[in-house]
Amino acid sequence: MPEITLLGTGGMLPLPNRWLTSCYLENNGKSILIDCGEGTQIAITAAGRSITRVDMLLITHMHADHVSGIPGFLLSLGNGSRTQPLDIYLPEGKSGMIKNLLCICDRLPYELRLHELPLKRACEFTADTIDPLLKITSMPMRHSCDCLGYSLTFGRKLVFQPDKAKALEIPLQYWKLLHAGETVTLDDGRVIAPEQVTENTRKPVKVTYVTDTLPINRIADLAHDSDLFICEGMYGDEDKKDSMNKKGHMLMQDACELAKKAGAKRLWLTHYSPAECYPKRHEDKLKAIFENVTISRDGEFITL
Amino acid sequence: MPEITLLGTGGMLPLPNRWLTSCYLENNGKSILIDCGEGTQIAITAAGRSITRVDMLLITHMHADHVSGIPGFLLSLGNGSRTQPLDIYLPEGKSGMIKNLLCICDRLPYELRLHELPLKRACEFTADTIDPLLKITSMPMRHSCDCLGYSLTFGRKLVFQPDKAKALEIPLQYWKLLHAGETVTLDDGRVIAPEQVTENTRKPVKVTYVTDTLPINRIADLAHDSDLFICEGMYGDEDKKDSMNKKGHMLMQDACELAKKAGAKRLWLTHYSPAECYPKRHEDKLKAIFENVTISRDGEFITL
Repeated sequence: MPEITLLGTGGMLPLPNRWLTSCYLENNGKSILIDCGEGTQIAITAAGRSITRVDMLLITHMHADHVSGIPGFLLSLGNGSRTQPLDIYLPEGKSGMIKNLLCICDRLPYELRLHELPLKRACEFTADTIDPLLKITSMPMRHSCDCLGYSLTFGRKLVFQPDKAKALEIPLQYWKLLHAGETVTLDDGRVIAPEQVTENTRKPVKVTYVTDTLPINRIADLAHDSDLFICEGMYGDEDKKDSMNKKGHMLMQDACELAKKAGAKRLWLTHYSPAECYPKRHEDKLKAIFENVTISRDGEFITL
Repeated sequence: MPEITLLGTGGMLPLPNRWLTSCYLENNGKSILIDCGEGTQIAITAAGRSITRVDMLLITHMHADHVSGIPGFLLSLGNGSRTQPLDIYLPEGKSGMIKNLLCICDRLPYELRLHELPLKRACEFTADTIDPLLKITSMPMRHSCDCLGYSLTFGRKLVFQPDKAKALEIPLQYWKLLHAGETVTLDDGRVIAPEQVTENTRKPVKVTYVTDTLPINRIADLAHDSDLFICEGMYGDEDKKDSMNKKGHMLMQDACELAKKAGAKRLWLTHYSPAECYPKRHEDKLKAIFENVTISRDGEFITL
């Protein structure tokens, strides 16, 4: 079952008591990191999570508070004796910036595979190295620079039906393969498809991550029906709306409206302004918009 | 009087309870920062020091644990409405790497002035924007990349002698100028030099900062007669000496030997390996080499 940890909840700059916004998603022993600002590698350790399990990095955009921790993170992965490649997904045209940042890293003992994602349209891809049942969708956001939101849909394993397997007289040695989704040919020549002995009754788990953007309508499409929608909310004061929108950001209220429109099950707010010292003070009015909102704190986590 | 704060004491990677090695030197309301790794801007705040007072950045070398915090630090300076230029001193040929790192910073509202320092010889320069009485010396170290050590000599203000001024019948309005070191011409035509009414009895304060290097002899020259010598010591276990030297580092024992040779008044150790969890356990044997050694902790500070 995917476990989601919000490593930090701060925007713009890291504070002594608040790490920069980034997210760690673990499933079946492998992890995905979304964004990696200054101090994110410390936040991973502080949250009791493991840097070495990270097999994929998703980047929303190339502002320093979301990427300046990348050199240190990559070096720490290398110090952990990593040899398998690391996949980094990022907005189109930004690979050169990653290469620029790498100028302060000595040679890494593993391959970096950079994958640029389109800025004009949504894009769905699978992450076979992590989990063949995981589907990721990127969608362009609207910020002061090119920015992507992400949805991650964790498919659930098929449930094996021993009664059906017995009724079909399938030898025990084929059960594991069929459960893993493979079609098998029995000694007697019969071809058995996994659907004949499994059921797919468990709904996939969907997590959506959106930060550094105006509250545009397509965010509700991306977050549609999410089990967990993680979204920025710089301030909870209505009078900050204009100044935030000018900077390509949104209010906590905007995030709640989007969650409602998306039919999300729960909303975690994040990316608070450094000037927003006590975001929890806005809880009552936000719950009036979207009941299942959490004014997240660093290290917030859930198993879905 | 200069106040020296060792913001962090870690090498290689930042830990939840140990910031990366960097130093904050404040004098007359202006500050110098030496190195700026991941999280250094948080360490400045955590130590109760001010980012906005920093007017000069000295860089020892371009490894990530010493410079990856630069983009975030420069942005935070900009958020603090800075308009005056910032001077950055760094090893020869490395300005391009700073420019690479800046690709993740939007336009800064102040000028960056990059000054490259020679790698073949020591170099002395003054820092007029900080303090005309401050002299800085850089010296090439020996590491796996180009690296500099720094000595900072804070000259002390002249002590004004009112009795001498009265004896020379110098009007009161000229006293402040003479105290500040200026030569003045009186209404009666006499030219008075500051030396005639001041005394320079206070010894300058010298601080030396050396990290990421083999324990080469010229470090003792750089640190000669220092009031405070800050030096790396990755481990305190003698059996780590060979492996450390191969990586261009030294042991705590090497730093103590250098402090003794330099005739330094006190030594602060720093840049501990992440695997060196309790550096203080080595204190007794280190004091046997150099009595006035401090196994520094993050936030160690002194007024000299």
